[in-house]
Amino acid sequence: MNGAESVLKTLEAAGAELCIANPGTSEMHCVSALGRSEKMRAVLALFEGVVTGAADGYGRIKEKPAITLLHLGPGLGNGIANLHNARRAATPIINIVGDHATDHLRFDAPLASDIEGLARPVSGWIGRVPYAHEAARFAREAYRQSMTPPGQTATLILPADAAWNDAEEALPPPSLPKPAPPSARAIDRAAEALRRAKGAAILMRGAVLKEEGLRQAGRVQAAAGVRLLCDTFAPRIQKGRGRVSVERIPYFAEQIEAFLEGVDCLLLVGAKPPVSFFAYPGRKSWMTPKGCALLTLAHPSEDGEEALRALASSLKAPRNPPLPPRETPPKAPSSDDALTPDLAARIIGALLPEGAILSDESATSGGGLQSSLADAPPHDHLSLTGGAIGQGLPLAVGAALAAPDRKVLCLHGDGGAMYTVQALWTIAREKLDVTTVIFSNRSYAILNIELMRVGAENAGPKALSMLDLSNPDLDWVSIARGLGVAATRAETAREFSDQLGEALRQKEPRLIEAAL
Amino acid sequence: MNGAESVLKTLEAAGAELCIANPGTSEMHCVSALGRSEKMRAVLALFEGVVTGAADGYGRIKEKPAITLLHLGPGLGNGIANLHNARRAATPIINIVGDHATDHLRFDAPLASDIEGLARPVSGWIGRVPYAHEAARFAREAYRQSMTPPGQTATLILPADAAWNDAEEALPPPSLPKPAPPSARAIDRAAEALRRAKGAAILMRGAVLKEEGLRQAGRVQAAAGVRLLCDTFAPRIQKGRGRVSVERIPYFAEQIEAFLEGVDCLLLVGAKPPVSFFAYPGRKSWMTPKGCALLTLAHPSEDGEEALRALASSLKAPRNPPLPPRETPPKAPSSDDALTPDLAARIIGALLPEGAILSDESATSGGGLQSSLADAPPHDHLSLTGGAIGQGLPLAVGAALAAPDRKVLCLHGDGGAMYTVQALWTIAREKLDVTTVIFSNRSYAILNIELMRVGAENAGPKALSMLDLSNPDLDWVSIARGLGVAATRAETAREFSDQLGEALRQKEPRLIEAAL
Repeated sequence: MNGAESVLKTLEAAGAELCIANPGTSEMHCVSALGRSEKMRAVLALFEGVVTGAADGYGRIKEKPAITLLHLGPGLGNGIANLHNARRAATPIINIVGDHATDHLRFDAPLASDIEGLARPVSGWIGRVPYAHEAARFAREAYRQSMTPPGQTATLILPADAAWNDAEEALPPPSLPKPAPPSARAIDRAAEALRRAKGAAILMRGAVLKEEGLRQAGRVQAAAGVRLLCDTFAPRIQKGRGRVSVERIPYFAEQIEAFLEGVDCLLLVGAKPPVSFFAYPGRKSWMTPKGCALLTLAHPSEDGEEALRALASSLKAPRNPPLPPRETPPKAPSSDDALTPDLAARIIGALLPEGAILSDESATSGGGLQSSLADAPPHDHLSLTGGAIGQGLPLAVGAALAAPDRKVLCLHGDGGAMYTVQALWTIAREKLDVTTVIFSNRSYAILNIELMRVGAENAGPKALSMLDLSNPDLDWVSIARGLGVAATRAETAREFSDQLGEALRQKEPRLIEAAL
Repeated sequence: MNGAESVLKTLEAAGAELCIANPGTSEMHCVSALGRSEKMRAVLALFEGVVTGAADGYGRIKEKPAITLLHLGPGLGNGIANLHNARRAATPIINIVGDHATDHLRFDAPLASDIEGLARPVSGWIGRVPYAHEAARFAREAYRQSMTPPGQTATLILPADAAWNDAEEALPPPSLPKPAPPSARAIDRAAEALRRAKGAAILMRGAVLKEEGLRQAGRVQAAAGVRLLCDTFAPRIQKGRGRVSVERIPYFAEQIEAFLEGVDCLLLVGAKPPVSFFAYPGRKSWMTPKGCALLTLAHPSEDGEEALRALASSLKAPRNPPLPPRETPPKAPSSDDALTPDLAARIIGALLPEGAILSDESATSGGGLQSSLADAPPHDHLSLTGGAIGQGLPLAVGAALAAPDRKVLCLHGDGGAMYTVQALWTIAREKLDVTTVIFSNRSYAILNIELMRVGAENAGPKALSMLDLSNPDLDWVSIARGLGVAATRAETAREFSDQLGEALRQKEPRLIEAAL
C-alpha cells in the first residue's frame, strides 16, 4: 500500500466517510486511492471554496470531519474564506493538501508556495508527512486533532512522494478527546450569581444549542427566570416547535446595547462575551453592560450541556418545565402583491417541512425569519459564522451530504451567492435535495447601510456603484440552469409560495430567484 | 482629509489610475474616498479572485500597479490564488486590505484573522498602517515597493480607524528604483562562453520578452547562432509577424529533456534554470542537460534588454539582422467538420487582429496555438504563470482595463474558467472589449493525462469521475447570459470561424463555447 492509501484507510478506520475534492496532479495518488475505496464517498466540487464550505456544513450536522482534498497552496488559498468561517464554527474538518514531492520543493517550481503559512491562520493543527512510512501516523493524528473539543480544522500536507511511496498498513482509530467535564466551582459560582441577579442571562454557543442542551437551559430558565441568548451568528441551533427557544443577539452595536439593557449577570456557556461585529467611529466594541457580572459556566472545550444540567440541579429546577404556548403558524401568504423580504419569511415559515436544515446566508433579506421560523416545525438552523460571505451554498451541499433524508433549504443573498456559485453544479451532480432561494435585491444591501453608519456620508454615484449589483442584472435562472439546476423566478407572494411549495415537496435540486 | 483619502491621493500622485474592488464594511471610507476621486477609476468585481487576477493583467500590460481593495483576511484569502500567479509573473500590484479598527482587534470579532500571515506567502512587502497620520507614508512606500524590479505585490493593511481618522495631506510620488544595470563581468563571461559553445541557448523571462528585448536577442542569435527560449509559462511575450520569435520550453519533463538535448551552454536573462512543473516517480526535476554550462547574464532585477544589447555589441552582432521569412497564415478553416483544438487554433491564428492581447489559459486545448500564432499579426501573449487555474478571465479583465483600444481574446479551458467565472459580470458591466472562448471538453483533461503519468494506473470509474466535468454538462451559453455576456456555442469549424470572426469585429463583450 502506498502513502495515499495508508492515509485514506487510516481516516476511514477512524470514521471518515466523505471526501470532497478538487484535486490536481500532486493529488493523483489520492484520487486513485479514493477510486479504490469502498467506504469513502468522493464528491467533486469545481472550486475549493465549495469544498471547504461543504466540509463545514457536513461537520456541523454529522459532528465528525469530512476530508477535503486540495491542490497545493493555491487550492488551499481558494478554500481559506470558508475555512475561516469553519474556524469560527469550531467544525471538525481534515484538509489533505497535496504538495510537490519533497525533493522537488527546493526547485521552487511555479506551484510551490508556503502552504504552512497559508494554513496557519485557519488551522488548529498542521502536519506535513515527512515520508510515506509516517503517513498513517499523521493521518490518525489529524483525525484526533480535528475532533478535539469543540472541533477544529486539521491540515495534513501530503507531498506527492509521501503519497506514492510504499507505506505502513493503515492504523486503527485514535482515541478521541471528549469535552472536559464542567467545573464544579464554576457551577457553584453561577448558581450563587443567579440567586443574587435581578436580570440574568445565559449566552450559549456550540453543541449546547441542540435540543437536549436547550432543554437543560429551559430548566434553568424555569428555576431562575434567566433570559436565554445566542450569538447573532451561531453555527447550529435546533429550533422550532417543541424546543426551548433562545433570543438571538441583534447585529448592530446600538441594537445590542438596547437588547442587553438591564442584564446584570451574564453566564457564558461555550460562548465569548458579546462584542460588536464591526467597530464604528465613537462607538464601543465591548457589549457587556457596565456593572454586569460576567461568568464562564463552561468554556467551548467543556461539556456545556452537562454544566447546564448540573446548574439546573443545583437550582432545584423542575425536570420538564412546560414550554410557553406556541402559535400555529399562519398559512403562507399567497397574494399577487410584489414579494418582499417579510412576505418571503412568512411563506418560508409556513412551508418549512419538519426536520429541514436551513443554511441561512439571507443577510439583509432575512430579518423576518427569526419570528416566522419560531413556530415552524423542528429544524436545524446554520448561519454564517465568520462573516466571509459565500458560505451558504457550500454549507447546504455539506448538510445535504450529511443528512440525505432531510430537506435542505438554502436562503442566500445574491451578493454572497456569487462567491461560491459553483456549488450549484455539485448539488446537481450529486442530486442533492437542496432548495436554494436567492434573495435578489441586486445590491450589497448591508454595505449601503454601513456606508451611512460609518460616517462615510455624501457618497456619490461612483461610491454607490461599488455596492450595487445591477448593470447588468444577474439572471439567476440562467446561471442555475447553466450549472444544471432547475430554476424559476418569483416576483409575487403567490409565485414564491407556489414555487417554494413545489420545490419543498420534490426531492431534487431546485433554485428560486426571489425578486425583491 | 481622512486616512483613506490620504492613501488614495498619495497613490494617485504616484501614478495609480485604477482600483479594482470588492469592499466590505471596514473599507467604507475607502469606497467613499474612491467615490470622490476624479483620477482613480473604480471597478467592482463580484469575487476577490477576479480582483487580484485583474490587477495582474493590468500590471502586466501597463507596467504599473492597479490597486485592489479587499475585505479583511477572508477577502484577501479569496484573492490568494491569483496573487500567487502574480508573484510568479512579478507583476506590480498594491493590495489595500481593510482591517478592523485597531482597538477592535483584541475582541477577536468574527471577521478577525491573521491578515499578515495570509499575505506573507504572496507579498513581497507588507505594511500595516498604525494610525491615520502615517497612512500617506505607508501608501507611498507600498507604491515604491510594488515597482521594485522586476515588480511585486505590496500589501497595505489599513485598519478602519486609520482610514476614518484625520490624516496628513497626500505625499508626492516616491522615487522608483530602476532595474540594476547589467554586470560587465557577466557580459564578458557570456560572450566568452558563447564563443566556446557548440549548442548555446538563451532562456529569457520578464520585460526582455517585449519587442526591443527580443530584437537584441535576435542580434545575439545572428552573431552566435544561439537558440532563443522562453519558459512554458511566460508572464508576457510580444509575438507575431515582424518580431524575433522564441521557442517555448514544453510542459512535460521528458519533452523538456528532448527539447534541451545538445544544449551545452544556457544563458539566463531574467529567468531561472528550467525545472519540471511537477515531479514524477523516478524522474528528475532539474532540466539543465548534464555538462551544460549555466550562466546568468541578467538577474530578474537587472536590465535584461541592456544586457543583451551589450552582449550583442561584444559579439559584434549586426544591428538589424533580417528576420527569417514568415508564412502568410492560411485562411481560417470553415468546413462543417466537428471543431477540434487544432482547427480552433488555426481559426484563431487566421482571425487574430493586430495588437490583440491574448489571455491564454487554454490548457490542454491550446497545443496548436504556438504554431498557428507564430505568423499572426503582432500581439501580446499572457499565460498562466503560477499554475493556479482560474486566472485567464480575470487577466483578460485587467488587460482590457489597461488597454481599452486593443482587442482582448481570452482562451480558456472549461475547468479553469469555472474558478473565477464571476469575471464575466465585470466584463459585461464595464463593457470591456473581451472575446472569451471556452474550450469545452467537459474534463480536467490534464489530470486524465497526469493520472496515468504519475503511475496511478488502473483508475476505476470513481477516480475518473473526479476528473470529469460532465454530469451535468456545464452550459456556458446560459452561464454567460446569466452574467450579462452575449454568448453562442460552436460545434463545427464553420460555426466557430463565423462566431469568432463576428466577435472580433465587434467592440463588445462576447463568449463562445467551443464544443470539443
